[in-house]
Amino acid sequence: MEPGATAAQIGTVILTIQKFGGTPHTLHNDNRTVIAGIGLSEAIEPGMFTKMVGVERVSGIHQPYKLASREIKTESTVINVEGAAIGGETVIIIAGPCSVESRQQLLETAWAVKEAGAKILRGGAFKPRTSPYSFQGLGLKGLELLAEAREATGLPVITEAMTPEMVPLVAEYADILQIGARNMQNYGLLHAVGRIQKPVMLKRGMMSDVQELLMAAEYILSGGNYQVMLCERGIRTFNKMTRNTFDLAVIPLLKQLTHLPVIADPSHATGRWDLIAPMSRAAIAAGADGLMVEVHPRPEEALSDGPQSLKPERFARMMTSLQQVAQAVGRSL
Amino acid sequence: MEPGATAAQIGTVILTIQKFGGTPHTLHNDNRTVIAGIGLSEAIEPGMFTKMVGVERVSGIHQPYKLASREIKTESTVINVEGAAIGGETVIIIAGPCSVESRQQLLETAWAVKEAGAKILRGGAFKPRTSPYSFQGLGLKGLELLAEAREATGLPVITEAMTPEMVPLVAEYADILQIGARNMQNYGLLHAVGRIQKPVMLKRGMMSDVQELLMAAEYILSGGNYQVMLCERGIRTFNKMTRNTFDLAVIPLLKQLTHLPVIADPSHATGRWDLIAPMSRAAIAAGADGLMVEVHPRPEEALSDGPQSLKPERFARMMTSLQQVAQAVGRSL
Amino acid sequence: MEPGATAAQIGTVILTIQKFGGTPHTLHNDNRTVIAGIGLSEAIEPGMFTKMVGVERVSGIHQPYKLASREIKTESTVINVEGAAIGGETVIIIAGPCSVESRQQLLETAWAVKEAGAKILRGGAFKPRTSPYSFQGLGLKGLELLAEAREATGLPVITEAMTPEMVPLVAEYADILQIGARNMQNYGLLHAVGRIQKPVMLKRGMMSDVQELLMAAEYILSGGNYQVMLCERGIRTFNKMTRNTFDLAVIPLLKQLTHLPVIADPSHATGRWDLIAPMSRAAIAAGADGLMVEVHPRPEEALSDGPQSLKPERFARMMTSLQQVAQAVGRSL
Amino acid sequence: MEPGATAAQIGTVILTIQKFGGTPHTLHNDNRTVIAGIGLSEAIEPGMFTKMVGVERVSGIHQPYKLASREIKTESTVINVEGAAIGGETVIIIAGPCSVESRQQLLETAWAVKEAGAKILRGGAFKPRTSPYSFQGLGLKGLELLAEAREATGLPVITEAMTPEMVPLVAEYADILQIGARNMQNYGLLHAVGRIQKPVMLKRGMMSDVQELLMAAEYILSGGNYQVMLCERGIRTFNKMTRNTFDLAVIPLLKQLTHLPVIADPSHATGRWDLIAPMSRAAIAAGADGLMVEVHPRPEEALSDGPQSLKPERFARMMTSLQQVAQAVGRSL
Repeated sequence: MEPGATAAQIGTVILTIQKFGGTPHTLHNDNRTVIAGIGLSEAIEPGMFTKMVGVERVSGIHQPYKLASREIKTESTVINVEGAAIGGETVIIIAGPCSVESRQQLLETAWAVKEAGAKILRGGAFKPRTSPYSFQGLGLKGLELLAEAREATGLPVITEAMTPEMVPLVAEYADILQIGARNMQNYGLLHAVGRIQKPVMLKRGMMSDVQELLMAAEYILSGGNYQVMLCERGIRTFNKMTRNTFDLAVIPLLKQLTHLPVIADPSHATGRWDLIAPMSRAAIAAGADGLMVEVHPRPEEALSDGPQSLKPERFARMMTSLQQVAQAVGRSL
Repeated sequence: MEPGATAAQIGTVILTIQKFGGTPHTLHNDNRTVIAGIGLSEAIEPGMFTKMVGVERVSGIHQPYKLASREIKTESTVINVEGAAIGGETVIIIAGPCSVESRQQLLETAWAVKEAGAKILRGGAFKPRTSPYSFQGLGLKGLELLAEAREATGLPVITEAMTPEMVPLVAEYADILQIGARNMQNYGLLHAVGRIQKPVMLKRGMMSDVQELLMAAEYILSGGNYQVMLCERGIRTFNKMTRNTFDLAVIPLLKQLTHLPVIADPSHATGRWDLIAPMSRAAIAAGADGLMVEVHPRPEEALSDGPQSLKPERFARMMTSLQQVAQAVGRSL
Repeated sequence: MEPGATAAQIGTVILTIQKFGGTPHTLHNDNRTVIAGIGLSEAIEPGMFTKMVGVERVSGIHQPYKLASREIKTESTVINVEGAAIGGETVIIIAGPCSVESRQQLLETAWAVKEAGAKILRGGAFKPRTSPYSFQGLGLKGLELLAEAREATGLPVITEAMTPEMVPLVAEYADILQIGARNMQNYGLLHAVGRIQKPVMLKRGMMSDVQELLMAAEYILSGGNYQVMLCERGIRTFNKMTRNTFDLAVIPLLKQLTHLPVIADPSHATGRWDLIAPMSRAAIAAGADGLMVEVHPRPEEALSDGPQSLKPERFARMMTSLQQVAQAVGRSL
Repeated sequence: MEPGATAAQIGTVILTIQKFGGTPHTLHNDNRTVIAGIGLSEAIEPGMFTKMVGVERVSGIHQPYKLASREIKTESTVINVEGAAIGGETVIIIAGPCSVESRQQLLETAWAVKEAGAKILRGGAFKPRTSPYSFQGLGLKGLELLAEAREATGLPVITEAMTPEMVPLVAEYADILQIGARNMQNYGLLHAVGRIQKPVMLKRGMMSDVQELLMAAEYILSGGNYQVMLCERGIRTFNKMTRNTFDLAVIPLLKQLTHLPVIADPSHATGRWDLIAPMSRAAIAAGADGLMVEVHPRPEEALSDGPQSLKPERFARMMTSLQQVAQAVGRSL
């Protein structure tokens, strides 16, 4: 639409899209309202829209992911979470334990990562585990502890939702909902988070390519939830010296293809605490909008992912060096 | 338990396992009842059970998958579905269209594959698709058509369930529930099919190793549903000349490690109709207990997976050659 | 050329190709002589050849591999090695130890595999080893022992050449030269075996796709050595339960794309002796023209590849079952 | 040996190692001479050496790569090439065209990259190509042009040697010999470059793990050539949006395991010029000692690798940003 398009003009376009069987999605880009008509038959004459008052330009989207594409929205999306602007100039650090294990463990970690400069607290309440006999997370109790840690420290929290029916409950407690790598193509779950109005972090599956990741994001966006951020967390390859292979080149690639923020998770990507600092620096240098890092006060006692968790002191030391790399690429921490 | 153990003797062992915090699972093996005490503390003295009347032997299970392991059940599991004994001497052929598209398409295919010797009809009603804008299946209508095809032809049917809440509905219509490759580690869904009493076919994820597949099966078994069959359908590798890489060596490997039946899916593994026949022969020669093959009367019009679908005539011709290979390895079709 | 083309007619075409800067290669197909003019400028008018006497038809080759393609030679190539016709109706079994270790070990194995039905003896004299400090093979002594085993048993032998300068020496002793997987794109070596007139077995690199394999074969063929057979020996993937992933679907795929014989190596593909028999059956069912299998009288004492070597008794038992599968697919052993 | 060990004391240790069948290698570390006795029987009593005069300490090396290991040499190796100290505080940039194509192309590029701050000129004279019919490099003429460019600009040059017999010739012209990814396990070639006294850059194979890379380096080191640098250039995975997958986590991993310098090659790793700048920044942030980047004045006319070549202007712009990242991690350019 033209910069000064009125509500009535916008409404007319929306109604017309609906009339012809399409689903209208309204996005903001470059001081303009952009209206995507998803599902409109290709038989429809674009000229029909061109001549409407207030319409600046009509164009098709060539990528199979429509709402996620830079074609429809050239401006980068910034997601605001309690003061943290994800996708903006500042590189946002998300940190915390893999699993919420106890009040003390969570609060101790929360205060430590906040002091070191983290902006968001992570912690798993429901844990997807390979074995049915492993620790499966504290569940509701974990969510309550996360809420308590938020109250105490002021840090917004991110935690994972694993099934569609779990989404409303998790959304009550969390500031950001995480979709885990194993669930990237769990379409029921994607539909469920597409119907809420809370930010979602979608982790790339360990076997998924860039297009599949963007199509999975499209499931959420097309449900009407436009606050989606993507997360590269390593892919599975023949190389077993690291837990996964950190596919950092997808970061600048995603920044070309989509307007959505891109986070990197060096903890799952490498699986080794001693590689977290250099790979965090590398991820920021590659253009990541944020990092998600596992921190645990006593990694050797962690109920999950101990070998890839940083101690708070190491995390704090690393933050200083990240600050320098962020500045070298024109950003701050 | 000893071969002639009484109900009271079995009951005593079960109650004792529960008393010490374990979950008892009762399996049948070699004319004996085997009772697995999952989750019993390792501190418990095995001698406690050894001296009980009717107990033949007490032993630990070393594999992380317990109920799926050949250690606990050396006898192969045979799953009976309306006359088809999956895991027995006969190699069971499952065939049908990728998606249920219409009454005519389904019935035409069902009669054709039945005549050619298939024992079970496949057909997707709910389809997991990479794009939210692709055909997602006929849904409930598809389930009804499958039921109609079963009535007409007498073939039992297998179809996919994609979310936990969908399980009871699908279980009402289908004889076997399929868990798709993308959902192999969708734990909510595995829990849901673990609570029903219908056979489940669990497809290997495209980047899952053998242990992860068996651990996923363990989620279902530990829920109390022991009718689980596994399916190799190709893994994702650098080789893109075929849709996936058919990892046939896992078939004899799985047969060593687990008592569960193993099916092979040459259609998804290769993605090319012209490789289905040789790779079906190879899968039977490698020891598969069954095959699942996509057949469509007019592949060029298929709404999904056309390039990997066989026409009914080719399917029938292939069946003759499969019969010969089955006999060469001491089985029938 | 037409079926009855004369030497003079053929010679004229050859000279014309050379005159215009091309390299002529003369192949036999379907009772005809086929002359490939490799490197002819695309600017050359095909009509120039069409009107020559004795020319039946002129056509381009679309595949990047020219001489290896089924386009130029629809008839399967059969390579005769001392009575073994590789690529014909009989599935040829090549067997023997990974490394030649001693006269006794080699002769004992050679007699055993011969008795069980193997047609060719394998044995490494020069071994490519990951570590410079591992056993590197007996070298010349190994070649002499292979020659002695051939004299004794009448079995032709295959052994590996690792460097260009080693080729003439190995060609003196061996009936077939093997190019190992690590050397599939060692172009100096490919050039060297392209200049001899002995059959060559080219193993697929563990990271190579089908087109790269055929292009590597093209290096040998374009050097003037047309006796090339290909060997699938497993690719490297994330799956580590087997040494490599046996990519059997490339066997029927290669049979479509090329006229060259295709051998399968279940020993390197799986790395586990207990999977050799089922995967050998699968390879024959998939259409392999031959198998190469490691056999060692005392695998636990082998200087290399013990865990994947069959004992002679097991090998003999396996051969019986291979015979049945070969018959099931219309071949013999 | 002790810091002030005399030549006679060192000589005695060397002779003793030889007397017992070992190969002595003399390295310098931390103001000490370290003598590695490779191939000494494990039966030899370490005490024999401990009591020799001038010996400070005797210890075993646990890694299978001995001379490449940080265990034997804790100090990082610095390789000096005409003023460029590779492995030191400065990150060394190697740049130039994929192939040497003409005098003008090479000199134009050489001056441009020198001006932008590159320290070493790259350019292929012998090119390993997938197809025997593709441009194979200018050969000797290419080497002469490289020598001319070195004379003109003062930049030392690196170029690839592909066969053992080619090594002396290439060593005459080049300052650093490159072993390509396809040849990482070409043991004849590794032996050949192990016998010269020129620096060697060993590129990681596209499906080689870290240990295989270090064992390949060990082939060169154990030949007596200690000037080896390693190069990460991407591995082959299922992800085809980039030419390879840039496995940056091996950079800090290699820096832990070995004292050899580690270079990164973003051009081959990504295959896309538009990803070179961010991935070069990432590689430096991850700890690379240098980069190798393809630059071509007219990429659209390049005879090889055009799509991944930077134009000189872009290269110069990138260098400014690399300088900033290098400083952020405590290094210079």
